[in-house]
Amino acid sequence: MTSRTTFLGLGAMGSALAAATLDAGRPSVVWNRTPSRARTLGERGATVAETVEEAISGDGVIVVCLFDHQSVRAVVDPVAANLAGRTMINLTTTTPNQARGLATWAAKHGVTYLDGAIMAVPATIGRPGTAIFYSGPEAAFDKNRELLDLWGQSDYLGIDPGIASLCDMAMLVGMYTMFTGFLHGAAMVGAEGVSAVEFARRQAPFLAAMTGQLVGLAATVDAKDYAGVGQQSLEFTEVALDSLVTASLDQGVSVEVLRPVLDIVRRQIAAGYGRQGTARIVEELRKSR
Amino acid sequence: MTSRTTFLGLGAMGSALAAATLDAGRPSVVWNRTPSRARTLGERGATVAETVEEAISGDGVIVVCLFDHQSVRAVVDPVAANLAGRTMINLTTTTPNQARGLATWAAKHGVTYLDGAIMAVPATIGRPGTAIFYSGPEAAFDKNRELLDLWGQSDYLGIDPGIASLCDMAMLVGMYTMFTGFLHGAAMVGAEGVSAVEFARRQAPFLAAMTGQLVGLAATVDAKDYAGVGQQSLEFTEVALDSLVTASLDQGVSVEVLRPVLDIVRRQIAAGYGRQGTARIVEELRKSR
Repeated sequence: MTSRTTFLGLGAMGSALAAATLDAGRPSVVWNRTPSRARTLGERGATVAETVEEAISGDGVIVVCLFDHQSVRAVVDPVAANLAGRTMINLTTTTPNQARGLATWAAKHGVTYLDGAIMAVPATIGRPGTAIFYSGPEAAFDKNRELLDLWGQSDYLGIDPGIASLCDMAMLVGMYTMFTGFLHGAAMVGAEGVSAVEFARRQAPFLAAMTGQLVGLAATVDAKDYAGVGQQSLEFTEVALDSLVTASLDQGVSVEVLRPVLDIVRRQIAAGYGRQGTARIVEELRKSR
Repeated sequence: MTSRTTFLGLGAMGSALAAATLDAGRPSVVWNRTPSRARTLGERGATVAETVEEAISGDGVIVVCLFDHQSVRAVVDPVAANLAGRTMINLTTTTPNQARGLATWAAKHGVTYLDGAIMAVPATIGRPGTAIFYSGPEAAFDKNRELLDLWGQSDYLGIDPGIASLCDMAMLVGMYTMFTGFLHGAAMVGAEGVSAVEFARRQAPFLAAMTGQLVGLAATVDAKDYAGVGQQSLEFTEVALDSLVTASLDQGVSVEVLRPVLDIVRRQIAAGYGRQGTARIVEELRKSR
């Protein structure tokens, strides 16, 4: 008989993971601090545990998907002694260092720790195109692949337990800055009565096409080949960004997100790199302040 | 006989426009401050003018593509008296207010003024997928459509001469913030030895997929329906962005572009909108500072 998979945490994401698992016919035991959430899954065939101790009483994998890192520690710390020899897959959103901290905690208690980062919303769990990153011991990833593949396209990133979360967060930075830049643009044209939807219909395919530039930019970054031919120079970008700042202010739009980009470009020019490629922005971002 | 089209300015973009026009068999006269640039086009069949006066001596459309707004004024001001009754299509990168200023200048001198903004690089002029926005008198756009369509997909945005440039600039804000966000993410994972190219191969399709969210975000903005269901709340986004800032600093990456996004979200939460949708960021950007 297949071991029961334990699900700790039944928020929207935790419930979606458990539901996809139950739908595949795998026995599961679920626990949530607020029990009402568990009932729906109970009706779908899950065993509903009253306590964490009960939920982890078997020998299957323990899937953790709680509100935040503090919630994870609050739930697993009291039962640490019962977890020796078990595998814990943590899909709670954590920073890389929090994931590393949990891996250290797990090692101390004889627990195999796999960290996961979900690049999707609950509604798309189990659907094509849903990517989930994992990091930690590769053997744990391989052994549980069948389970993981029920939730999305499983992508193993490396042994460092923090790397899945790091890659997830690095990608979300791109998403949030893109969304904010889009809303900035919508505010600019909105000041002249152009609807945001009309603007989005032009902006979306343009940005999608521009993602085609990222691998090329990245190759420049990896090679530090900022003097290579065919790159848009920092000087050119400075003129362009300066116009964008002026046009934004003319339209009454705040430049608090855009101006720092111009500032970065200007610092690189002041450092003597004006003729070099705009990908040098990455060199300025690497200097923590 | 077709009137000759005049091209003032033969930088990379001006040359590409003239070349596409010549390739379509349309007679053209070209001028550039530095005459060497004109020779290549002369070999392709263009009449090379020695002076601006000579270049504008016919009765055809005058296409202007110079370094910047100041260059345009410097080139056309001295010949303004000769331009009455002519149509000028300005594809130089200008801010919306500069385009409006030129339209006023043109009206004073009896010149029909059409402003254009090119969403492409010189190499893609005349290729499928190249969009060019126009604004100004619609009759001028319609009358010259055959010429304009040689360069790209012509998109007429309205009578306000500034709107083509405004839409162009609003879209470029999205592009530059997306590129900067990508480079920020590359710096984060780069600190752990992940190559930028490996990161870009994951980030590019993810961001392209996320552009699918823009029309929905925009509909929320147009309706100011930030309390509607299914939106990611500002409170949720605040937790996420706070994690991204922490993870960035942990990796030694500057948050000077990311932190302002978090600041905006926090101001909206402080104003009492924490449970409302994240698209409210646009309301904060509309307040110029």
